Amino acid sequence: MGNGIKLDVSGEEVVAQLLHLATFSDDPNPAVTRIVFTKNDLLARGYVKELMAAAGLKIREDPMGNIFGRWEGSNVSTGAVVTGSHADAIPLAGAYDGTLGVIGPIAAVAALRRAGFRPRAPIDVLMFTSEEPTRFGLGCIGSRGMAGELTAALLDEKLDVNGTSFQAASTAAGYGGASHQEILEGTRIKEGAVAAFVELHIEQGPLLEKEGTQLGIVTAIAAPAALRVFFSGDGGHAGALLMPYRNDAGLAAAEVALAVEAAVLKTGAIDAVGTTGLFEIGPNTVNSVPREAKLEIDIRDINKDRRDAIVASVLKTVEEVAKRRKVRHRVEIINQDAPAICSDKVIAAATEAAEALGGSHKRMVSRAYHDSLFMARFAPTGMIFIPCRGGWSHRPDEFASPADIERGVKALALTLAKLAGSAGDETGAHTEL
Amino acid sequence: MGNGIKLDVSGEEVVAQLLHLATFSDDPNPAVTRIVFTKNDLLARGYVKELMAAAGLKIREDPMGNIFGRWEGSNVSTGAVVTGSHADAIPLAGAYDGTLGVIGPIAAVAALRRAGFRPRAPIDVLMFTSEEPTRFGLGCIGSRGMAGELTAALLDEKLDVNGTSFQAASTAAGYGGASHQEILEGTRIKEGAVAAFVELHIEQGPLLEKEGTQLGIVTAIAAPAALRVFFSGDGGHAGALLMPYRNDAGLAAAEVALAVEAAVLKTGAIDAVGTTGLFEIGPNTVNSVPREAKLEIDIRDINKDRRDAIVASVLKTVEEVAKRRKVRHRVEIINQDAPAICSDKVIAAATEAAEALGGSHKRMVSRAYHDSLFMARFAPTGMIFIPCRGGWSHRPDEFASPADIERGVKALALTLAKLAGSAGDETGAHTEL
Repeated sequence: MGNGIKLDVSGEEVVAQLLHLATFSDDPNPAVTRIVFTKNDLLARGYVKELMAAAGLKIREDPMGNIFGRWEGSNVSTGAVVTGSHADAIPLAGAYDGTLGVIGPIAAVAALRRAGFRPRAPIDVLMFTSEEPTRFGLGCIGSRGMAGELTAALLDEKLDVNGTSFQAASTAAGYGGASHQEILEGTRIKEGAVAAFVELHIEQGPLLEKEGTQLGIVTAIAAPAALRVFFSGDGGHAGALLMPYRNDAGLAAAEVALAVEAAVLKTGAIDAVGTTGLFEIGPNTVNSVPREAKLEIDIRDINKDRRDAIVASVLKTVEEVAKRRKVRHRVEIINQDAPAICSDKVIAAATEAAEALGGSHKRMVSRAYHDSLFMARFAPTGMIFIPCRGGWSHRPDEFASPADIERGVKALALTLAKLAGSAGDETGAHTEL
Repeated sequence: MGNGIKLDVSGEEVVAQLLHLATFSDDPNPAVTRIVFTKNDLLARGYVKELMAAAGLKIREDPMGNIFGRWEGSNVSTGAVVTGSHADAIPLAGAYDGTLGVIGPIAAVAALRRAGFRPRAPIDVLMFTSEEPTRFGLGCIGSRGMAGELTAALLDEKLDVNGTSFQAASTAAGYGGASHQEILEGTRIKEGAVAAFVELHIEQGPLLEKEGTQLGIVTAIAAPAALRVFFSGDGGHAGALLMPYRNDAGLAAAEVALAVEAAVLKTGAIDAVGTTGLFEIGPNTVNSVPREAKLEIDIRDINKDRRDAIVASVLKTVEEVAKRRKVRHRVEIINQDAPAICSDKVIAAATEAAEALGGSHKRMVSRAYHDSLFMARFAPTGMIFIPCRGGWSHRPDEFASPADIERGVKALALTLAKLAGSAGDETGAHTEL
C-alpha cells in the first residue's frame, strides 16, 4: 500500500473475542439472543469497553448508550473518522452480525498502532445502541438519534412488550435522561464532528461466497420499510360457528402475507424483497376461530419508488381483504426510510485498501439495514463486506471464516488510515473528504 | 307433565353461581381462562363440590379428576342416569360454555328434590376433566378415559408446554396415580353402570336465537378432527436473502390455512367447518424470514366421510406446498373421531320435557365437540341446548339469559326424572332404556 503500513492482525484472536461476546446471550450458544439494555446487553457492553480500553481508546458514552472509543489524532480540530456497528442480536441469531463491526475495528486500530501509524484525524470506534428493532419495534435507534432523525414524540410511542419506554430502559441501564427530548439533544452529532463513517460487516447474502470474491465494497444501502397490520373479527367456536357467519382475522392475515410475496415478485426486480416476519393470532387455540391477528411486514429495495409501490400495493390488499372478509383493520407504518448512496471518497479509500491487500473485491449493494443508512444522512459513509457461509445471518449457524475476518479487519484498518490521514502528512487524505 | 312434577328453579340464582365460578380465572372477568389442574381449576372444583354437597349429593372423584355427585335412587342395583359437562375454559373464554352443564344439573336435582320427586335409578351430576384441549393438546380427556377410548401410550405423548404429563399434573392436583395405565383402569366406567347420559349446554351457534326457538334437542354430534402441521425452512435475513433463495415456512403455513377454508367451502355443505385456530411462526421477528411454522387445524362435519375427505384434501395441500416451497414438513393427527348419534330414548325424554314446559323446541345437530361424544360410545346419550347471544362462545362476551337458563334447567330436570323413573314406579322409564 502507498503509505507502507505493515499490518499484523490475527483472525483467530478476533474470532475468539466474537465467541466470547456471544456468551452474553439469553439463549444457549451457538444461538445468540441479546436484547438492548437487558442484562446480557449490559455484560456485552462491559466486555466491549474492556477491549477498547486495552487498545488504548478513550471511552465516551452518549445518553442513548452509543459507545465511542477514541484514538486521538494529531489534528484536534478536525472531524473524526468513525467506524462501528452494533452488538444487539435478535432472538436466536448468531455471533457475527454487527459484532464483527464492533470487535473488528478495535483489532484494526490496535494493528495500526502496532504498525507505527499515527492518525491525523481522530478515529472513533463506535458501538451503536439497538440496531435491531426487537425491543422497541424500531431499528437503528442509536444512529437515528445521532443523525437527528428521531423525534421525542415517536420515541414516546415505542414501548416494549412490558410497556417500558426507551427513556425508562436506557435510564435503568445507566444512560438515558429525564425525557426523550433531553436524550435526543444529548445524542445528536454536531455538524462537522464526523468526517467519514465506515462499517465492517458480514454480507448477510450469498453473493461473495458464491463468486469466491473476498471483499465487498458497498455502493448503496437498500431502502427499508416496515408495516404493522392488525385485523380483528368476532371469533367464535371452531365447531359451532358455521362458515358463512365467520370473519376470521387469521385468514385475512394469511392472505396479506401471501400478497406481500406476490407484490414483490410482480416487480420482477431481484433487488426487491418483502417478508412477513411476525405473524400472531389470538386467542390462538385449535378450537377457536381467530379473533385477532397482527403482522409485521418488512419491504426493501434499492429503488425507493419501486419499494414505495410495493408498500402501496400491500396497503391496498389490506383494505380489500378487510372489506371482503368483514374484519376490522389498522395499519401502522413503523418506518419507511430512504436508501443511502455511499460516498465516493469512502468507496475509493476502501477500494485502495482492498487492492493493497491483493485479493479479489467487488462493488455491491447492501440489502440489509444498517446504522450506515442513518450515518449517511450526515457524513460521507461506506461499508466493507466479507463473505459469510451460505449467505446466512440472523441464525445460530451464522459463520464467517477467520481468514475472511482477518482480511476484513486489515481492509478496514487501511481504509481508516487513508481516511484519517497520517500525522506526518498534514495535507493528506482529510482534505479530500 | 305426566308425572306432575312442579319445579321451582331460579335462573338468576344459577347465573349468580356461574358468575361466581367465573371468578376462578387466570384473566380478569368477563374473560375466563381456566386450564385443567391449575390453581383456578382447583378452586373451581372446590366450589362445584360445595354446591354438590349443599344439594345433598354424595361426592366421588376418579383418578382422572372427573367429579360425580350422586343422588341415590330407590333401586340400588340399576345403572345411573348421568348428567354433566366441564368447567375448564380456553384462554379468554366466557362464563357459560360447559359450566352451565355442571351448575345447572345441581339446580335441577335440588328442584326435583324440593318438588318431592324421588328417583328410582340413581342420578349422577358429573364434572368432566379437561374437555378443552388447551393444556395437553387433546380434548375430552375425562370422558375418553371413562369410555375406555384412551391408551396409556397416547397419554404418555401428550405433554403440556412445560413438558408435564397428565399423570404428573393430575397427581399434583390430588388425583392421578402411579402411571397412566393405573389412572385409566381406575377411570373406565363398568358396563351397565351408566343407564343414560344427558348434557345441558349453550348452543354455541346462532340458530336458536335467530329462529326464536327456546330449546334445542340434539340428535347428533359432529365428528371432529384436529391436525397439527409443522413446516421448517432455512430462515435468513429479511433484507439480505433474495426472494429466489427463500423457503419461507410462514408462507407455506399461510397457504395451508387458506386451503383449509377452501376445502371446506368446496363441499358446499353447511355442516362442514374448518378452522386454523393456532398459527405460530419462528423466530417471529420483523426482519427474519420465518424458519418455522406450526398450525393446529380443526375440521368437523356430521358426515364422517365428508369430514375425512376434507382432512385428506388438507394433507394433500400440505405435501404440495412443502414440495413447491422447498420446506420440510411434518403432520400429526391429534384426533379424528367418529360422530355420535343420540339415543332415541333420551331424545324422547327431552322432547317430552320440552313439551311439558310449553315453549318452542327443535331437533338439531351439535357442531361443537362435547364429552357427550364419548359418553355416547357406551351409554344412550343426548343433549339439551339453550340459545346464546349471537351464537358466540369461547369469548368473554359469551352470554345466555337467565330466562333461557331457567328453562334449560327445568327441561333437564324433567328429562332426568323421566329417564331415572320415580321411586314409586318400579316398572317405569328405566326398562325402556
